[in-house]
Amino acid sequence: MIKVTVWNEYRHEKLNETVAQIYPNGMHHTIAEALQTSGFQVHTAVLDDPEHGLTEAVLRETDVLVWWGHIAHDEVSDAIVERVQRRVLDGMGLIVLHSGHFSKIFKVLMGTTCSLRWREADEKERIWTVNPSHPIAQGIPEQFVLPQEEMYGEFFDIPEPAELVFVSWFQGGEVFRSGCTFRRGRGKIFYFRPGHETYATYHNPHVQRIITNAAAWAAPSPELVVPREHQGPWPSFEPVPGGK
Amino acid sequence: MIKVTVWNEYRHEKLNETVAQIYPNGMHHTIAEALQTSGFQVHTAVLDDPEHGLTEAVLRETDVLVWWGHIAHDEVSDAIVERVQRRVLDGMGLIVLHSGHFSKIFKVLMGTTCSLRWREADEKERIWTVNPSHPIAQGIPEQFVLPQEEMYGEFFDIPEPAELVFVSWFQGGEVFRSGCTFRRGRGKIFYFRPGHETYATYHNPHVQRIITNAAAWAAPSPELVVPREHQGPWPSFEPVPGGK
Amino acid sequence: MIKVTVWNEYRHEKLNETVAQIYPNGMHHTIAEALQTSGFQVHTAVLDDPEHGLTEAVLRETDVLVWWGHIAHDEVSDAIVERVQRRVLDGMGLIVLHSGHFSKIFKVLMGTTCSLRWREADEKERIWTVNPSHPIAQGIPEQFVLPQEEMYGEFFDIPEPAELVFVSWFQGGEVFRSGCTFRRGRGKIFYFRPGHETYATYHNPHVQRIITNAAAWAAPSPELVVPREHQGPWPSFEPVPGGK
Amino acid sequence: MIKVTVWNEYRHEKLNETVAQIYPNGMHHTIAEALQTSGFQVHTAVLDDPEHGLTEAVLRETDVLVWWGHIAHDEVSDAIVERVQRRVLDGMGLIVLHSGHFSKIFKVLMGTTCSLRWREADEKERIWTVNPSHPIAQGIPEQFVLPQEEMYGEFFDIPEPAELVFVSWFQGGEVFRSGCTFRRGRGKIFYFRPGHETYATYHNPHVQRIITNAAAWAAPSPELVVPREHQGPWPSFEPVPGGK
Repeated sequence: MIKVTVWNEYRHEKLNETVAQIYPNGMHHTIAEALQTSGFQVHTAVLDDPEHGLTEAVLRETDVLVWWGHIAHDEVSDAIVERVQRRVLDGMGLIVLHSGHFSKIFKVLMGTTCSLRWREADEKERIWTVNPSHPIAQGIPEQFVLPQEEMYGEFFDIPEPAELVFVSWFQGGEVFRSGCTFRRGRGKIFYFRPGHETYATYHNPHVQRIITNAAAWAAPSPELVVPREHQGPWPSFEPVPGGK
Repeated sequence: MIKVTVWNEYRHEKLNETVAQIYPNGMHHTIAEALQTSGFQVHTAVLDDPEHGLTEAVLRETDVLVWWGHIAHDEVSDAIVERVQRRVLDGMGLIVLHSGHFSKIFKVLMGTTCSLRWREADEKERIWTVNPSHPIAQGIPEQFVLPQEEMYGEFFDIPEPAELVFVSWFQGGEVFRSGCTFRRGRGKIFYFRPGHETYATYHNPHVQRIITNAAAWAAPSPELVVPREHQGPWPSFEPVPGGK
Repeated sequence: MIKVTVWNEYRHEKLNETVAQIYPNGMHHTIAEALQTSGFQVHTAVLDDPEHGLTEAVLRETDVLVWWGHIAHDEVSDAIVERVQRRVLDGMGLIVLHSGHFSKIFKVLMGTTCSLRWREADEKERIWTVNPSHPIAQGIPEQFVLPQEEMYGEFFDIPEPAELVFVSWFQGGEVFRSGCTFRRGRGKIFYFRPGHETYATYHNPHVQRIITNAAAWAAPSPELVVPREHQGPWPSFEPVPGGK
Repeated sequence: MIKVTVWNEYRHEKLNETVAQIYPNGMHHTIAEALQTSGFQVHTAVLDDPEHGLTEAVLRETDVLVWWGHIAHDEVSDAIVERVQRRVLDGMGLIVLHSGHFSKIFKVLMGTTCSLRWREADEKERIWTVNPSHPIAQGIPEQFVLPQEEMYGEFFDIPEPAELVFVSWFQGGEVFRSGCTFRRGRGKIFYFRPGHETYATYHNPHVQRIITNAAAWAAPSPELVVPREHQGPWPSFEPVPGGK
């Protein structure tokens, strides 16, 4: 059984009544429920937990980490970012949602500014599948609509994704690479654009399916080989003339 | 005229007589001469210069930065690494040589450990061209030999390269992805494996040609568009029903 | 001086008065003029020329071939398609425009159906640059508008591009991967979406700049190495114990 | 249960006693047994069957096709190649083994010559994992040895793989991109180098594991969306001013 930890900044829900009404127990609970229903073993953690809920013990028991953050990226401790990065490089999957594009953990894994354009205007987003046979696109129609979302537009300053799975169209005239995969070390990463806190996006069944597909895709194999300690100095297999 | 800054840690040449004999004025001078001969405007900088020779003024006048470091990666100041990273994301090319795989600047741009296997055994390296039409491979034969080099072996913990240009074969039984391109922000990056300090690798005409090809390839266009300040909040092109 | 051959089916211009008014000498002439102005040596060829104007002699003198076809793909002889394919694999650049997505030459090089959605509705297309440092994007703004174009929509059945340079937004709700690079053999290929015959698209300066940028990018190096005859049986460099 | 059809040219086994001793019932039987043991439902087909054993009915019941051919590529009918290609583009997985690099089906899907260097010299091949978290590499050590194999060397004239999973080292001095993934249409393709008929390669447990991993990876999802008939003319979602 794949173990997923859903991490949420969990601030908007306490500060903004609109958000609280959409996600009474926090976005992490809505996402966690969708994952549980699909057969994952789910744990949640939030910024204000001790060590942000991301202790060594929790990460050891996490196959895939889902990340939502927005207004408090700076409050995430550098030491814990480094701990999460190390786990990703060792094989833990990572799903970064929406405004998580500016989280410390996403930026250190990408190496870029991760900046983009944005506009809050209650506008329509249409999400297109451009890689229909990708595991993350299974069961997802060729396009679906989120009736109201925040706009994110190009240029999205990320390294060219390993695979581009979804592209968004926005009513106001923009496009966005909305579903992108990356590999870092032994870890698989999926960035997924939708999910502004004032909309019911994480209640959408297609969005839920994409997140559960991504969790299955990103989970490390139990037989992952090449542990990190094998790196470094190394003897030779073949005789090397003149070799020391 | 493309402006290249060749940066060298410049320690081995002062500490080790073998290295000093091969590179009497430092590896940076040998590399700089090859670039000058090919028509680049070249500047050099070393670790022990003030600000490591990488002041804002120097970087502003640098189209492509070549980086060689090994035993003193930790002495490079974090502030200057961040300054170089910003310039790369804004369009400056970066060529990382050999043991520079473990430099701070390469690691922050890759997001991974950048670890690998290695062995010093005076062994033969044969470099194969696997992308013969790539600009960096122009004038390079299908394979060439470095009679004595340090071995670098897989797994090389980097993100999957945008393009794989060269693969090395080693006498002792290993292979290595030796010529890899990446894009970060508006900047182009080339990692090139060879160049252990105790061998005359940077005197090799094929190695020099690859570095000069890479400098031409990595130089930013004078017409580079989408300045960073365009990122952020953005008005809409089309009327957005309900838009604020 | 880079030698470009602009190939046009050249049928719509003779059959449809609207097209004839926009392109009195054929689309190939409009495109050829733009290339000439930018310093390329340009030749044109059309379907009804003997051997479609693509004799061995013409191809031998062609660094980059530009292709526009639509209603007469089937009239292109298989033998000439094979001849063009062979030249691309040996290093000739190929720029495929708009409805050329269904040309025989594009389909044999891609291996897929190259199908897509489409709609003729005089609608607005906005082209976004998603790879601003790519040579093909130089001098191109972050987005530009074609006020009336045919819509092309996803899923576009091509292999995942080597590099994605442009993405289109359409008024009617679709997105499209509009600027895609591929490598096949030693040849570079660029597919560029716009250019329905009833619109003045090839008079647009941004479109012209993209095509000239692409021609410069796709031209083979004069020092292209690894001729095809080196392929096949091969002696060894190293002694092989037990080797025959 | 994933349904795999293992296709073999099945000629060497009848013509050459060495091959017959290694594979008394043909290579397809050895490969089929490994797949059955791992829980796949397996069918076999050979060149001399009617329609090469690849009838519409057989392909309809095939999730993944494994292909081994060598001396009789030309005897495979073009009509059946086209039928197999259509099935791949509609989602069937394809695993192409060793000399299948020159099969008609691989060449039409790649669009290139698929040529390479080769040498039969009973030499050692060491296969390195360069993408350890890829599903096809699960359970495979960081490197393993085939004590005697035919050499295949670069330049291997294929499009740049979507993912590079394995790289081979050969005793005689060459390297080769030995495990490569591609996507064409909705179908996933894996090329795997080893398997010269005069060696016991398909009895090797690592080779068997790689083939079974690849079959699991290449199998289409039961929920594959975007059927081909959705391609073509298309209405709009949004009102298009001036739209017809």
